[in-house]
Amino acid sequence: MSAVETTGLLYGVGTGPGDPDLLTVKAVRIIEDCDVLAYFAKAGRRGNGRGIIDRLARKHTEELPLYYPVTTEIDKEEDGYKSQITGFYDASAAAVAAHLDAGRTVAILSEGDPLFYGSYMHLHVRLAHRYTTEVIPGITAMSGCWSAAGLPLVQGDDVLSVLPGTMPEFELTRRLSDTEGAVIMKVGRNLPKIRRALQAVGKLDTAIYVERGTMANQAMIALADKETDEAPYFSLVLVPGWKARP
Amino acid sequence: MSAVETTGLLYGVGTGPGDPDLLTVKAVRIIEDCDVLAYFAKAGRRGNGRGIIDRLARKHTEELPLYYPVTTEIDKEEDGYKSQITGFYDASAAAVAAHLDAGRTVAILSEGDPLFYGSYMHLHVRLAHRYTTEVIPGITAMSGCWSAAGLPLVQGDDVLSVLPGTMPEFELTRRLSDTEGAVIMKVGRNLPKIRRALQAVGKLDTAIYVERGTMANQAMIALADKETDEAPYFSLVLVPGWKARP
Repeated sequence: MSAVETTGLLYGVGTGPGDPDLLTVKAVRIIEDCDVLAYFAKAGRRGNGRGIIDRLARKHTEELPLYYPVTTEIDKEEDGYKSQITGFYDASAAAVAAHLDAGRTVAILSEGDPLFYGSYMHLHVRLAHRYTTEVIPGITAMSGCWSAAGLPLVQGDDVLSVLPGTMPEFELTRRLSDTEGAVIMKVGRNLPKIRRALQAVGKLDTAIYVERGTMANQAMIALADKETDEAPYFSLVLVPGWKARP
Repeated sequence: MSAVETTGLLYGVGTGPGDPDLLTVKAVRIIEDCDVLAYFAKAGRRGNGRGIIDRLARKHTEELPLYYPVTTEIDKEEDGYKSQITGFYDASAAAVAAHLDAGRTVAILSEGDPLFYGSYMHLHVRLAHRYTTEVIPGITAMSGCWSAAGLPLVQGDDVLSVLPGTMPEFELTRRLSDTEGAVIMKVGRNLPKIRRALQAVGKLDTAIYVERGTMANQAMIALADKETDEAPYFSLVLVPGWKARP
C-alpha cells in the first residue's frame, strides 16, 4: 500500500510475574494490536508467558511458538548444549526476522521483565540492531513476590543483592553477609544450602519463601517455618533490609 | 447498608517509572475505583506519583496529599530531622486510618514499586497489620531505564547489585568489582566518584547514564561520553552483566 517498503516493528513485551492484571497498559495494547505473537515454550507446552496473556490474544493474531530443543536439566557447560541452544536462538531470530521483513509487527512475550534474566535477551541481541525495537518493561517475579508477601524489601541507602541459589555455599554466605536486602533465585534443590547460608549470617529468621508468586496457587511462608526442603526451581527467597524501620 | 460495620481497604499502588502507560491494569482499576487517593508531595507541588496518574483520577475521588515537612537536603542523621519525619509519617498514617475507619477504600500512590525504596513503606509498616492491605507492584525506575536503553542487564547465573551512589568510593569500587550487573542509584553530585569507581574496575566503557527514564524528556548516554558531571539526584547508572552474550 505504502510507497516505501518498511519492515515491521519488534516489541519485547514483559508479561509480569503471573497475574494477568499485572501486565502494563502498554503491554496489553501491543499484545492486542500486534500481527504476530512470539513466545518461548517447552515442546508440547504453551509457555508461561503465553499462558499469562491468554485472555488478550485475538483469534486473528498469528502465533509463533519457539520450542526449546533441550530441557534445562542438561549441563549448560557442555559444548553440545551450547551449540544446540545457540542454533536454536539463531533459528528463532530468523523466524521472527522473516515476519519483520514482511512488514508485520511482532511482539515477543517474556515472563517478568524482558531484559532481566529473560530469554527474550537472546533474540534482542540478534535483532535490535537490525529492526526498530522497543522493550516494554514488566513486573519482575521478585517484585510480584515481595508485594504479595507485603514485605518491605529495601529503603534509603540499602544495598540489594540478587543472587542465584546455584552459587557455592561459601560464596552465597559471603554475599548474604555483605548486603542489606537480598533476593535468592533458582531455589529448587539449593534450598538446604540457602538455609545454611542464611543461618550462618543470622538472617534465617526474617527470610520469606515464595512459590508461584502472584499466581492463583501462590504459597508463601517464613523460611524458618517451612518443614520440607522441596521447592520448585522458580521459587524465591526474600531477605528484607531496612534495619532502621520503626 | 451492611449489617456489619467494616473498615475500608488499603492499597499501596505502584505508579511505575513515569510513563502513564507503564501502570499495570490492576493499578489503573484501583486508582479509578478508590474513594481516596493519597500521595506524598513536597509542599506546593503535586508529587510525582500523582502527576503520573493525572489522566486517571476522577473528579469525585477525594485526594489526600501528604506534604513532607522538610526537604531531603537536611542531614538525615540529625535528631531533629528524625523526630520531625517520624512525626510526619505518624500523622500521615493517622490521616489515612481515619478514612479507612470510615469505610473508605484508600489508594496510596508510590512511584516505581511501593516496597522497593518507596516512601509508601513508612505507611505500610504503620497500617498493614491493622487494615486489610494489598500492595500492587509497579515497574521500578531501574527497569524502566534499562528497557528504554534496550540494555540487556543480567542473564543466567549473574549477580545483580543495586547500589546507592552515596556510599564511599572504596566501598563502591569494591562492590562494582564483585558483581556482574549493577544499578547505581542516587547519582546526583556523586557522579565523579561513580566514574572513578567504574574506571577502576574496568567497567566505565559499558556503563550507561539515564536521566528521567521513560518520561517524555528522558536522556541517556554512554557514561564515558557524558561531558559534564551534572546529574539530577534521581538519575541512574546501569552496568550490564551477561559477559557470555553472543
